[in-house]
Amino acid sequence: MNSKSVVLSALMLAASVSSPTFAQQAPDPQVRLAEIDIDPTQLESYKAALKEEIDASVRAEPGVLALYAVAEKDNPTRIRVFEIYVNQEAYEAHLETAHFKKYKAVTQDMVKSLKLIETVPIMLGAKGK
Amino acid sequence: MNSKSVVLSALMLAASVSSPTFAQQAPDPQVRLAEIDIDPTQLESYKAALKEEIDASVRAEPGVLALYAVAEKDNPTRIRVFEIYVNQEAYEAHLETAHFKKYKAVTQDMVKSLKLIETVPIMLGAKGK
Repeated sequence: MNSKSVVLSALMLAASVSSPTFAQQAPDPQVRLAEIDIDPTQLESYKAALKEEIDASVRAEPGVLALYAVAEKDNPTRIRVFEIYVNQEAYEAHLETAHFKKYKAVTQDMVKSLKLIETVPIMLGAKGK
Repeated sequence: MNSKSVVLSALMLAASVSSPTFAQQAPDPQVRLAEIDIDPTQLESYKAALKEEIDASVRAEPGVLALYAVAEKDNPTRIRVFEIYVNQEAYEAHLETAHFKKYKAVTQDMVKSLKLIETVPIMLGAKGK
């Protein structure tokens, strides 16, 4: 690490303690959206597998900043996941983890359709300390 | 900045947020999704107004946990906002703020369509200490 990047890292650290926009502090965050339709007869099993996968990812992977999973209130078998990674490499590493591969295998027959949407962040505003 | 310092910064960033699942800590978080199509000729003005509104909301409103705004990579005039509030009252209070009312007035003629989706959270996983 050169001196310039040490300074930048220090500034980012300082900013990240006090700033309300944690994900904005990552220089090149990758945000992806997943829209997933689930077989209604397997919805509870799917949710359990998804929760396990999210918990493992957020705990074990430094590059996974957030995985927010919700169901549409008017269409509970339609799941949306809002995903924030530190950068593209972190997303690619996530796909290779044992917990993600397990989730994909376990849920293969529960998922009726899956749409992945790549995005460009405009502003990722979140509460800080 | 070299790749090593980016990784270090990301690790420091991750360590600086106070809770692993901050939104999960709220007993009854409200998560809403907005899908907004913008007049292409006014896209930059719209983004500026949206950023100002997000910044003001996250700073001034204790009940606004996160407002994440992104554009679809393949359709840059289609904006998605992932919104997390402490509870329903916080969402309703947000609608009454001066900064939100200003945003609505300023962007009224920039927005071609707006779809609001209510959701039920499954798991809101985010990096913490």
